[in-house]
Amino acid sequence: PDMASIAGAKERNGQLTKPPGALGRLEDLAIWYAGWRDTDRPQITAPQVIVFAGNHGVCAQGVSAFPPEVTVQMVANFEHGGAAINQLAKAFGAKMDVHALDLEMPTQDFTVAPAMSEAEVVLALSTGWNAVDPASDVLVVGEMGIGNTTSAAAVAAAVLGGSAQDWTGRGTGVDDDGLARKTDVVARGLARHDTSDPLEALRCLGGRELAAMAGAIAAARTHRIPVILDGFICSAAAATLEKAVEGALDHAVAGHLSAEGAHAKLLDALGKQPILSLGLRLGEGSGGALAIGVLQAAVACHSGMATFAEAGVAAG
Amino acid sequence: PDMASIAGAKERNGQLTKPPGALGRLEDLAIWYAGWRDTDRPQITAPQVIVFAGNHGVCAQGVSAFPPEVTVQMVANFEHGGAAINQLAKAFGAKMDVHALDLEMPTQDFTVAPAMSEAEVVLALSTGWNAVDPASDVLVVGEMGIGNTTSAAAVAAAVLGGSAQDWTGRGTGVDDDGLARKTDVVARGLARHDTSDPLEALRCLGGRELAAMAGAIAAARTHRIPVILDGFICSAAAATLEKAVEGALDHAVAGHLSAEGAHAKLLDALGKQPILSLGLRLGEGSGGALAIGVLQAAVACHSGMATFAEAGVAAG
Repeated sequence: PDMASIAGAKERNGQLTKPPGALGRLEDLAIWYAGWRDTDRPQITAPQVIVFAGNHGVCAQGVSAFPPEVTVQMVANFEHGGAAINQLAKAFGAKMDVHALDLEMPTQDFTVAPAMSEAEVVLALSTGWNAVDPASDVLVVGEMGIGNTTSAAAVAAAVLGGSAQDWTGRGTGVDDDGLARKTDVVARGLARHDTSDPLEALRCLGGRELAAMAGAIAAARTHRIPVILDGFICSAAAATLEKAVEGALDHAVAGHLSAEGAHAKLLDALGKQPILSLGLRLGEGSGGALAIGVLQAAVACHSGMATFAEAGVAAG
Repeated sequence: PDMASIAGAKERNGQLTKPPGALGRLEDLAIWYAGWRDTDRPQITAPQVIVFAGNHGVCAQGVSAFPPEVTVQMVANFEHGGAAINQLAKAFGAKMDVHALDLEMPTQDFTVAPAMSEAEVVLALSTGWNAVDPASDVLVVGEMGIGNTTSAAAVAAAVLGGSAQDWTGRGTGVDDDGLARKTDVVARGLARHDTSDPLEALRCLGGRELAAMAGAIAAARTHRIPVILDGFICSAAAATLEKAVEGALDHAVAGHLSAEGAHAKLLDALGKQPILSLGLRLGEGSGGALAIGVLQAAVACHSGMATFAEAGVAAG
């Protein structure tokens, strides 16, 4: 971030017509945002939401409550404006793009082979990278991919350590048997692909949409576009960047705490405090998109409020 | 609420293209909202934010970090669009009204006399009642009044029980000595006006802006306008209604948990879970207004999403 913009934003924040600290987290968010936008008085006018979709060979192991064809059906739903993320993007004035990544060619089942070849993971990363509009001023990346909480749990365990049990949750809603099956699948994947290298973990255990999210978050950094992370899968993809380069997520905040069991642990590992905690566990970027409203409000207060001097108010 | 609309909204919610429960609290909010709007597929198009301002005789006891003239200065700031609440109302498309209630005539210092006469409290209640636009579809009421966390603490203690210490906090930011002084002032007020009657507590210990907030929240009920409560002061004013008639706040949700010490205890007493918890402690309706965005998003998802049948998505 730009330290001069942060210093300028802090100084401005101290002069606004409110008791010091009275806007709580909104003040921190506005100052953080200012630092990445190189101005002490930023605006948000062009949020972008990108949804990446991928299919997972590991679905053959019975890890999801939904059949894999739901991925392509939901992509059609995104394109026709019928999903939750469409309503949320519209509510907060974000443009929304959808990228379906080779849905007809699922990744390999990671219990038997690496999920992707090197060429495949690089293609997915670059699709994500190129999906970011450099003119955006805040980015949310989301995903759709039946089976991808299994993949995300495996990636998180590989790069952050811990057991399959620590990271595996109920996803879209598997029962106790399903959870035991998922956990076993993740454990087998970790045993087969024994790596903590972030790119290798993405390739062997991840999925195209996870790689694309990582690529997009990295691209946003080069464009100085602040990112709002969504839930468990987005955070697992993001964790590969932080593991690769410490501080790689300094331009990102956690939009929400998801109801997916291990998300709190994942945010702890990333050192991120969620903005919202409303029990969402949908993916699609929904929790991140919901937090756009809070960030817009924070920046609107910071840049729109009068100072004590401008308003002729006694500063206490 | 209208039980048929609630039943219809629940049925619709179960058919939307998402795993059951995956939108968490947003689903509950949309169904609650539908029940008060008498339709299973509501819209939010006309939020209203009303800020009531009052002055407090108890300021003579040195209970605030700010001088009492800040109340009228902040009213001018609201009217010129320079306060936090102006930016928040604008961010979420709410119209905002400001009512200054006899600022040149502060209430009486409640340590020596009732804050208001009967005529005065009734006038304030009716000002609040009449301030509500019947065409609004969600209401946030906020306040400005140097000294009013002291008044709110006294009202909360009177109607909900407990000691002055239980309910007195730092407000806009008093130090330890200030907090001790405030607590003593609240205790003396409670000793002088020994009542748990809600209207009498508002009259003797409250303020014009607290009474106006109570009046507006009650009026919203008659117009079937759902209310988002703001922080400690708004919640204390609202508590008088709940104490008068159990269930009187069923049309209200708690917008946020404020950083004012006793707000959590107050929300517990009202049985309300806050939507947001971002450390705000500004008043003005700011936390309630911020939650408008979440409610809008909840209703937009509920009413805008496609069903599984409409989208041709397998329901798992």
